[in-house]
Amino acid sequence: MRFISYSSAAGEGVGLWTDGGYRGLSTADLGGELKAFLGDTKALAGLALRLAQAPLVDLETVDLLPPVPRPNKTICIGLNYLDHSAESGFEAPTYPTVFARFANSLIGHGAPLVRPDASDMFDYEAELVAVIGKGGRHISKAEALDHVVGYTLCNDASVRDYQIKSPQWTMGKVWDGTGAVGPALVTADELPEGCKGMTLTMKVNGELLQSASIDDMIFDIATLVSVLSEAMTLEPGDIIISGTPGGVGASRKPYLWLKPGDEAVVEIEGLGTLVNRVVQEIRA
Amino acid sequence: MRFISYSSAAGEGVGLWTDGGYRGLSTADLGGELKAFLGDTKALAGLALRLAQAPLVDLETVDLLPPVPRPNKTICIGLNYLDHSAESGFEAPTYPTVFARFANSLIGHGAPLVRPDASDMFDYEAELVAVIGKGGRHISKAEALDHVVGYTLCNDASVRDYQIKSPQWTMGKVWDGTGAVGPALVTADELPEGCKGMTLTMKVNGELLQSASIDDMIFDIATLVSVLSEAMTLEPGDIIISGTPGGVGASRKPYLWLKPGDEAVVEIEGLGTLVNRVVQEIRA
Repeated sequence: MRFISYSSAAGEGVGLWTDGGYRGLSTADLGGELKAFLGDTKALAGLALRLAQAPLVDLETVDLLPPVPRPNKTICIGLNYLDHSAESGFEAPTYPTVFARFANSLIGHGAPLVRPDASDMFDYEAELVAVIGKGGRHISKAEALDHVVGYTLCNDASVRDYQIKSPQWTMGKVWDGTGAVGPALVTADELPEGCKGMTLTMKVNGELLQSASIDDMIFDIATLVSVLSEAMTLEPGDIIISGTPGGVGASRKPYLWLKPGDEAVVEIEGLGTLVNRVVQEIRA
Repeated sequence: MRFISYSSAAGEGVGLWTDGGYRGLSTADLGGELKAFLGDTKALAGLALRLAQAPLVDLETVDLLPPVPRPNKTICIGLNYLDHSAESGFEAPTYPTVFARFANSLIGHGAPLVRPDASDMFDYEAELVAVIGKGGRHISKAEALDHVVGYTLCNDASVRDYQIKSPQWTMGKVWDGTGAVGPALVTADELPEGCKGMTLTMKVNGELLQSASIDDMIFDIATLVSVLSEAMTLEPGDIIISGTPGGVGASRKPYLWLKPGDEAVVEIEGLGTLVNRVVQEIRA
């Protein structure tokens, strides 16, 4: 199954891919947004049954949101591919490097990716996203993938000079409209276990800038779920943005920064393409 | 005004200090939790008028929650006092060090502060918390305090060995039940501007372990609001946990860790006392 979240003149809605199109209902009609249905297999199946009978969504008239528009936790993993860890000047990690985004930074497929006025060091990062279904704590690695309801993509775009203004990277990662997530939540049953063997790519204006196998992740999805859940109760709709491979703009000579008009495309076959065009910040 | 959030057998509620006691209504009756009223001065005044007429809350039968139980953003500032920055091995910062907590880690006054099974390096951190009222972005320092609806206290308790397992501190700060916030949200009109001149203390089992003037903060509340809002839209109920002064357990010789049974008390005169007893993690 493939779910989207969207906003329209009538409010927010949830859609399901059915016979070549998305069929959708408003969150008001559904009694909740997508994350309210992710924690329970039967609830999600019930949602799918309702959506399969719903009217078609005209994608020309709605704006896609991240599949989970406001996760309780947006958990980001850094340095999770050896080549990116090395190009960033770090030794190979022995424990996941974890930081956070806030929901204000998240946008959906097709939405403008906002380069802030404050910096022109605006960088792309292609990443696989795991979406938590059934919540839990102290989840073993063996059971971890039972807690992942599905996957999507992220362009974890970063404001590099702000990322290193202090020892913590947060201020490079929280800017409004810099974290694209989508296009859709694809349920795990449609994909290889833990997305193993799949290829993640980033293209900017058609040029291939990052390409890696998910197998190259230092900490795979099952390990991340297990390690994170040692500390915190994972909840339905929490997202784990699992790290970017080598090839980011900050590691190139000369630097390669995103600029207004650029088209950034993250892709994993089976998860679709996440396309966002870069715009300069427009102040209210 | 002084607001609390609480949970009871009947659900969650919000209370207002009135003539020597808290009067409260359920969030169902109010049509929202406290953060729904914080963004607008008139809405907050209307809430206060309703609560002032409400039944008394029996504090023996309810559990206090953080005043904002589920902030959209829980923004933590590190290294914001010179003595703590030095004792932690860092140079004086020139830009705020920012990291995040997730709401699963937050507890209220009187709730157990949970030392995890995974570590005995469980440390206290007394902090002043600013609560955002009116939201905004690109807020000037001159206008910043207009966006702070009030203040409360935090014990930003940290799992020190996990904090340094990677370059990012997140995994020391996100454990369930380790971030105490409260006891109440005290509106800014009852306090000196930016809490200037006030004294923040931490006592464990009655022993004074941290004591600092809010004036010793490297980045004061107005500066933090302004700097953070350069990157992100601040929203009603967002909390800024503004950093801890010197004297944490990790900087003592020998180390001084929190252990089950310890009573940790954070205090600022005018904001009350935040009291939590340490318990060992109990697994479900």
